[in-house]
Amino acid sequence: MMEQILENRRIDLIARHFLNAPHRVNAIHEADAELVDMGGSSENYLAVTTDALVEEISSGLYDDPSLIGWMLAMANFSDLAAVGADPLGLLVTMSYPSSQDEPYVTKLAEGISEACQRLATFVLGGDTNQAEAVFLSGCAVGLVPKKSFMTRIGAKPGDKVYLSGPAGLGSVYAFLKMTGHAGKLPNSYFQPVARIREGQLVRQFASCCMDTSDGLLHTLDTLMRLNRCQFIIRDQWEKILHPMALEICKAQNLPPWLTLAAIHGEFELCFCLRPDQERDFVEASSRAGWVPVAVGEVIEGKAVSLKKGDKLIPFNTALIRNIAQEAGSNPEAYIGRLLEIGREVVL
Amino acid sequence: MMEQILENRRIDLIARHFLNAPHRVNAIHEADAELVDMGGSSENYLAVTTDALVEEISSGLYDDPSLIGWMLAMANFSDLAAVGADPLGLLVTMSYPSSQDEPYVTKLAEGISEACQRLATFVLGGDTNQAEAVFLSGCAVGLVPKKSFMTRIGAKPGDKVYLSGPAGLGSVYAFLKMTGHAGKLPNSYFQPVARIREGQLVRQFASCCMDTSDGLLHTLDTLMRLNRCQFIIRDQWEKILHPMALEICKAQNLPPWLTLAAIHGEFELCFCLRPDQERDFVEASSRAGWVPVAVGEVIEGKAVSLKKGDKLIPFNTALIRNIAQEAGSNPEAYIGRLLEIGREVVL
Repeated sequence: MMEQILENRRIDLIARHFLNAPHRVNAIHEADAELVDMGGSSENYLAVTTDALVEEISSGLYDDPSLIGWMLAMANFSDLAAVGADPLGLLVTMSYPSSQDEPYVTKLAEGISEACQRLATFVLGGDTNQAEAVFLSGCAVGLVPKKSFMTRIGAKPGDKVYLSGPAGLGSVYAFLKMTGHAGKLPNSYFQPVARIREGQLVRQFASCCMDTSDGLLHTLDTLMRLNRCQFIIRDQWEKILHPMALEICKAQNLPPWLTLAAIHGEFELCFCLRPDQERDFVEASSRAGWVPVAVGEVIEGKAVSLKKGDKLIPFNTALIRNIAQEAGSNPEAYIGRLLEIGREVVL
Repeated sequence: MMEQILENRRIDLIARHFLNAPHRVNAIHEADAELVDMGGSSENYLAVTTDALVEEISSGLYDDPSLIGWMLAMANFSDLAAVGADPLGLLVTMSYPSSQDEPYVTKLAEGISEACQRLATFVLGGDTNQAEAVFLSGCAVGLVPKKSFMTRIGAKPGDKVYLSGPAGLGSVYAFLKMTGHAGKLPNSYFQPVARIREGQLVRQFASCCMDTSDGLLHTLDTLMRLNRCQFIIRDQWEKILHPMALEICKAQNLPPWLTLAAIHGEFELCFCLRPDQERDFVEASSRAGWVPVAVGEVIEGKAVSLKKGDKLIPFNTALIRNIAQEAGSNPEAYIGRLLEIGREVVL
């Protein structure tokens, strides 16, 4: 199942050379952050993850250095959020040409710092190098209770599927940015906050969790393959999609589901709940002043499907996900192919 | 003191934007790996470090993908060794063009894997991206007992200065490689092993420790600035230098000290011992079947000096260290300037 996705093959091509770490709790692909048993009597696992911003910078998707810094931190912390971890901090690798102007580097560092402060955490250290192009990589570390960590594994037929917030903003930002319409966007339009606090609550209830950094369809496709069951989204777009995503879909005459298909997501958490956990979870999130979004449910089968009335319409998620790998680093080709599929598949 | 070194200014330009993490035990510049108090009742600090291979690849210093992978792992684990940590594992960020041939990626992964196996540790996870050029970054995590961790701080006049093994091989490898004489080198000539095991022993005795990843003079210069005392190397080259480094110096008519000055080191540990600890340390290392190298001592003052008979001759370490930043990513300019200094300064 996993190997139908080109990105997974790329990872496996590398990972097959590595021995399996006996103290790592999760298997490969099975968690957003690695969960490490530190031995001794600790009540916690170490959660550790690394994420580089490469295509996002080379494609021009992120061009404001403040946003680049912010996203470097948030992308890493979002992976910690998805395992339910409390962050200890961030390490950053910053490589850039010696000719890079100081204001750029300053804004980059400020973006990283502001993101950490927003999450009440810290930059712990890093590495800088002189390089021909800007290259940024981060590594976030945290702790998660052994009795309530989350992985991508655990969904079962009957589970309810939730999002920590409405979806679609990540792909709409990318679409407007890459088609030269970003001028319409206010500065704060896309500045996601990793759902650390929500993850700390969700970990007490969820059967599995994964972030939507690559878009909701990507997330559900991965959860479907790992858990071998069918994930259903209801076509309640007013509820599932961010109002701005809905608005753009109408203005551009695009099907709403397409905003869930693009590979640039909004860094929400997507998680499953056993039916008997749902009420307690909704009450707890309400007490915390937070309104999660019910998007659908898990049933028997092997697909990600849209529920329209009584009909179940499966998405061709393998096709959709593999566009990104096939288009390589050509964003125009990627967007063109995705819109083509959007027009072909009338749901 | 620290700001006389251009590299430190580059780091401070970024780091001044970050809040000080209250649970980080070391201040900036003060340890090879960050030491993090995880709270609770743990007997250990978390040790975490990140290191990217950038100039080493772009300059062609490392061009064999097996060596690149090996060094990516070892450079990170060497930082763990210098704080005395027991490794938990490594995370890797691997970015490369989609056109990169599979044998290259395979050898890269094998190099990483072999390095981890050599140290009885593991790759825990990572991130891969499509990029225009190869870019590699690592992040090593480990644990170190709160009662015997090491930082770069703690040297005092009277301390003895030791190396975990002879020096000079890193710079000689770089010199031969960058001047087109690498054909003379056997494959295994430069394949350093991070001194994890030695660090675990040294941590019980040393007053401070730092690795020689950027060469011994760089290390001593940093220790001198941080500890505000004078570091003396004795001119016992037969003892301090690797036989191969000595041989090349003779063949090329280069002064032996120059092999300690180049910015590419051999990943040994450099550490200080109180005089009353020296005997126990030497006995313990002997029992472990390991022969550390006594290179000199710490006295009052602010310099790194060569002791020749009764004379103390200070190195201009700021000048030497700043060549690398001034030459930018031009290895010929760097080597040319270094050799020039080598001919001028007759010690």
